[in-house]
Amino acid sequence: MGFSEPSSEQIAADLHRALDDALRGPCPPKLAKAIESAVLLGGSRIRPQLCMRIFEAADHGGGDRDLAQAAATSLELMHCASLVHDDLPCFDDAQMRRGHPSTHVAFGEPVAVLAGDALIVLALQRLGRAAALNSARGLMVFESVARSVGPPFGIIAGQAWESEDRISLEDYHRAKTGALFVGAAEAGAIAAGNTDPRWRRFGQMIGEAFQVADDLKDALLTPEMTGKDAAQDARNGRPNAVTTFGVDGAKSRLRNTLRDALRLIEPGASGAPLRSFVR
Amino acid sequence: MGFSEPSSEQIAADLHRALDDALRGPCPPKLAKAIESAVLLGGSRIRPQLCMRIFEAADHGGGDRDLAQAAATSLELMHCASLVHDDLPCFDDAQMRRGHPSTHVAFGEPVAVLAGDALIVLALQRLGRAAALNSARGLMVFESVARSVGPPFGIIAGQAWESEDRISLEDYHRAKTGALFVGAAEAGAIAAGNTDPRWRRFGQMIGEAFQVADDLKDALLTPEMTGKDAAQDARNGRPNAVTTFGVDGAKSRLRNTLRDALRLIEPGASGAPLRSFVR
Repeated sequence: MGFSEPSSEQIAADLHRALDDALRGPCPPKLAKAIESAVLLGGSRIRPQLCMRIFEAADHGGGDRDLAQAAATSLELMHCASLVHDDLPCFDDAQMRRGHPSTHVAFGEPVAVLAGDALIVLALQRLGRAAALNSARGLMVFESVARSVGPPFGIIAGQAWESEDRISLEDYHRAKTGALFVGAAEAGAIAAGNTDPRWRRFGQMIGEAFQVADDLKDALLTPEMTGKDAAQDARNGRPNAVTTFGVDGAKSRLRNTLRDALRLIEPGASGAPLRSFVR
Repeated sequence: MGFSEPSSEQIAADLHRALDDALRGPCPPKLAKAIESAVLLGGSRIRPQLCMRIFEAADHGGGDRDLAQAAATSLELMHCASLVHDDLPCFDDAQMRRGHPSTHVAFGEPVAVLAGDALIVLALQRLGRAAALNSARGLMVFESVARSVGPPFGIIAGQAWESEDRISLEDYHRAKTGALFVGAAEAGAIAAGNTDPRWRRFGQMIGEAFQVADDLKDALLTPEMTGKDAAQDARNGRPNAVTTFGVDGAKSRLRNTLRDALRLIEPGASGAPLRSFVR
């Protein structure tokens, strides 16, 4: 998914700001370094990009850009928290992440657990502040982000499905990967004052496409190319699109899903950055 | 700390409500059971009691009881989250909690990590909803609770000090145990429309007293009496008030701190439940 990134500087600046207060002064130094590394060392920022581009596409005047930005930052911090916890020895036991040692490898398991916890709090703190300034719309955005993380539909529930004996592949992926994309789409649109359920569906499609693309990368690329351990799904006995549909089947699913998503964007200039993001 | 508990039914009912939506329907069953057990199996509810009693003592008309109740519930859910994570093998490796197997013993380590994560989200979700209905005061209460959990001053930072080579016993206890008491006192008072910094100091004192009482229990009582593993501090090489001041020294610190705290409560009927709570 190559795309230009007009808002990537804003996204980076807002992530820095969300961490600044927490990590200055009396924060235990290892915890502070672990949090910074987990957020600032790499990361494609796909979720906050999606949130901001949907905000721009859905905004027909009267959008609350700071609220959208807060949701975007909050979702990225939640994503980083989930990576730190999913990499722990009791889950994937991943050694590498974004081309660097994973958080528990670099800072020890206790600090990694706490860094993930802290990122969840910082995520909702950043969003809570912006939401309070716009109370009706703010609460809807806050709920949308919180729902995409907590049980029963969010990424935490998604990860918990791995501990169950019987799971549906669809429920699992929808919660584990899809939820944050749905949150990004919904929050961006609501911040723009647009509650059309189309945006939720759009987020689902992008989440599905991302999952298939990730499964293809997991199967086909080397650790040097992805910056993380290879073939983790196979190693952890997890079902994925490549093992289910084969490489060609997975590629055609990816193409079809993105084509369907593009159809949901209204023609016109405001949707152009979002279209280029999808392409 | 024996005390009557007029609001304990409300506290229990609100904790149930905060979990209900999340744990119904499509939540992974082990995660749902782990979250319920972590919150509903026992617990003295000291933090939410403190929050509600300070609300009542500080309210001179115009207090927002639902906001105080949301803060109380949020703090208790955060406290439960911290117990689940602190009991993990990489921290205390505790086998028992509140007279039952600890969460990772009962449900496995992955589910325990996720149950703690989910409780943090649910805590701020309950509070965010109430805060949005009272935006100026709501944001202050939200910030107070979030600050008592996240870095640099909250319980997550407190726990992270255990991973540092050099720590001050005071900073460590203030963050690890004291922060939630400060949050409870401050949030209760702000919900009542009272921003007197006395309440913050009051929370600090109760937190210190609680820490000393906990150190005495850890040193003197059996696992059957406390419902958790004995002498954990000694086993984990952590400093505490008994090892520092001896049993008699710790007892006299406890008495003095509670006496000083009582002096901060204004005379009069509205402070009576809070006075009996402290006694």
